[in-house]
Amino acid sequence: MSTRSNISFSKKRTWSHDLPISFLMQQGVENPGVLSLAAGLVDQSSLPIESTRQALESLFTTPKMGLEALQYGTTAGSVALRTLLLSHISNLEQKPADELGITLDNIIATTGSQQYLSLVGEILLDPGDICLVAAPTYFVFLGVLQGLGARIVSVETDEFGMRMDSLESTLDMLESQGDLAKVKMIYVVSDYENPSGLSLSIDRRQQIVDIARKWSKSQRIFILEDLAYRELCYDGPVTPSIRSFDPSGDNVILTQTFSKSFSPGLRVGFGVAPLEVCAAIRDKKGNDDFGSTNLSQHILTRVMSDHLYYDHVATLRNVYREKRDCMLEAADEYFSDIPGVHWVHPNGGLYVWMTLPESIETGFQSPLFERAVHTEKVMYVPGELFYAVDQGLPPDEQLAPQKITCG
Amino acid sequence: MSTRSNISFSKKRTWSHDLPISFLMQQGVENPGVLSLAAGLVDQSSLPIESTRQALESLFTTPKMGLEALQYGTTAGSVALRTLLLSHISNLEQKPADELGITLDNIIATTGSQQYLSLVGEILLDPGDICLVAAPTYFVFLGVLQGLGARIVSVETDEFGMRMDSLESTLDMLESQGDLAKVKMIYVVSDYENPSGLSLSIDRRQQIVDIARKWSKSQRIFILEDLAYRELCYDGPVTPSIRSFDPSGDNVILTQTFSKSFSPGLRVGFGVAPLEVCAAIRDKKGNDDFGSTNLSQHILTRVMSDHLYYDHVATLRNVYREKRDCMLEAADEYFSDIPGVHWVHPNGGLYVWMTLPESIETGFQSPLFERAVHTEKVMYVPGELFYAVDQGLPPDEQLAPQKITCG
Repeated sequence: MSTRSNISFSKKRTWSHDLPISFLMQQGVENPGVLSLAAGLVDQSSLPIESTRQALESLFTTPKMGLEALQYGTTAGSVALRTLLLSHISNLEQKPADELGITLDNIIATTGSQQYLSLVGEILLDPGDICLVAAPTYFVFLGVLQGLGARIVSVETDEFGMRMDSLESTLDMLESQGDLAKVKMIYVVSDYENPSGLSLSIDRRQQIVDIARKWSKSQRIFILEDLAYRELCYDGPVTPSIRSFDPSGDNVILTQTFSKSFSPGLRVGFGVAPLEVCAAIRDKKGNDDFGSTNLSQHILTRVMSDHLYYDHVATLRNVYREKRDCMLEAADEYFSDIPGVHWVHPNGGLYVWMTLPESIETGFQSPLFERAVHTEKVMYVPGELFYAVDQGLPPDEQLAPQKITCG
Repeated sequence: MSTRSNISFSKKRTWSHDLPISFLMQQGVENPGVLSLAAGLVDQSSLPIESTRQALESLFTTPKMGLEALQYGTTAGSVALRTLLLSHISNLEQKPADELGITLDNIIATTGSQQYLSLVGEILLDPGDICLVAAPTYFVFLGVLQGLGARIVSVETDEFGMRMDSLESTLDMLESQGDLAKVKMIYVVSDYENPSGLSLSIDRRQQIVDIARKWSKSQRIFILEDLAYRELCYDGPVTPSIRSFDPSGDNVILTQTFSKSFSPGLRVGFGVAPLEVCAAIRDKKGNDDFGSTNLSQHILTRVMSDHLYYDHVATLRNVYREKRDCMLEAADEYFSDIPGVHWVHPNGGLYVWMTLPESIETGFQSPLFERAVHTEKVMYVPGELFYAVDQGLPPDEQLAPQKITCG
């Protein structure tokens, strides 16, 4: 009775051990004096205190609205918010919603876009199923895929984002290996990707839809389009999404968030998908939490109907453009003399990707990381985290993930 | 190119089809004039408009606090809130936290207690693994188990909740079938269960801990204790939890929510578990949403530190006691003449369980449900939903779930 029996965890629990994000956050907590260029909190001083306060005032001075915000909502999210999202999407795409083939029923509100990404993974991927990703790509999503026991296959990138010839040849290779039927989706961060700062060029947005359709032989291959940064554009207007090149909406699942463009503390994201996919997401989300925070959805509804939102985004663009320029100037000043060091000029988003000479290790265990954090008091995310390792095996037969060092 | 290929969903997607909660909510939406005794919204008029407004004012008049609330939080939830939860739990149990063996690190904040329940299922249950439940029990959790492909085995109940002799004989039967090693947990709603209104008696709270330990042979068997209604007690003080009878904390995972005792619109719940379990939950939650709504956690922190919480709960107890009494008086007046009709007097919570004669069908397709909703304009939840069907087979080999009609 006094000896403790072992905990027998589920198989999938063993697939989500030791996520690097935990290490990064722990480093942040343990080294509070360090300037973190890692694990993206948003700019603290430009958070929308005043707009939120106004929205709350307008919410709570009308008792009916206040009561609704404090009551349960529905699994799919507030109808008022989703109605506003429909015109928001339409504004961003510069196209009427019906031309985009999107109605209220295609939209589901979630706890950040992270929950939407995770739900899409849950409903589509069995262990061993395949998701294609850019190399490098958003490492937190790699963790989601790993946690589901999915096989991650990387596609090469260049300065215009994911390379379409590499995508085709990867699909061709998977078909010749007899694995095409396991390919469920292609994950793409279209604008100012975390970490590369790069965007998928416009002509590739049409091409990727055509490729997804062409290779949807025995089953549909979805493009999971992550538009977390789309509104943070500093050098021009918002870019049309991949989804806008698929007016049927059959092959693209899109997700966006208000975490970067308004406030991550509200945790409101959303996604747009075909109705069959929405039904599956609703069922899973019904089991997981039967609805994200209703109050947050009501706050955003007020923020958008009281026309506080777009002004805030305009302000943010100026704030972040200045920060980006400052970072690029510093890079120019301190790194341009060093042979083999180069970096990307991102047109939006929060990330600058820097490449060091092959000979310099950058990982958590490297002398560079050690010195950066403990001596120079600056933390960065090692590039190796953004590369998936495809071992071509179901998760049970895989070795512990190997680290690739990105030079 | 123009013909749509089929969507190949994950296997688990097929296990979460057609949840009855969706049907109930749809009925509610389609019949707005109906008085719903189903699908538990909380009492609208007693929602804490004024306390929330005060908490928001104190939050947003201190810019530092306001900014923190609008920034990202952490996966485990706000340290300030979890610190207050530690004394909250201690208050409810009338025992110091260290005597209970609970520290900050044992607590994780979630999107309602529903997310906590779902996460525990995710990290412990593989398809075919067993969860024991009371019959009847909370049907939304049955949906979670079904969605994970778990095998649900029912244990008999009487007026003191789950019967310990039935629990022992069920475990004995599972052992003789060679299935004991698949038993991962026993789900118990200790106080004023949804739907029965019944509570587990105090002596059974000690017994169930002993039974879980005794049968933890090759692996640990957890009691997953759902305390959603514990603070809504109308006839006496808060009851000590099962967890309080397991000071080692090894065999009990506890979850609570502020949805019933404060506001469901904030979607804040939490759970207490051994550290190994917390690590697993954090990893899964990190992939799922990397943290629930930070603003809600900050609001609750203010509500609790500004001493607005317990007053609100005291008010709620009066409001709901009156509603319960009104319901029981109506039952006395209209049903006591009808032979074979009886009902429970719940000492707390939101539910009154009524049993009709065997001959009367009560399901969604029954004439009674039809007449109640469309003629009498009252909606109830059919009792059959609260009974699991154990087909003793892994989910892939099961037939479609059969409906049991509860007389």
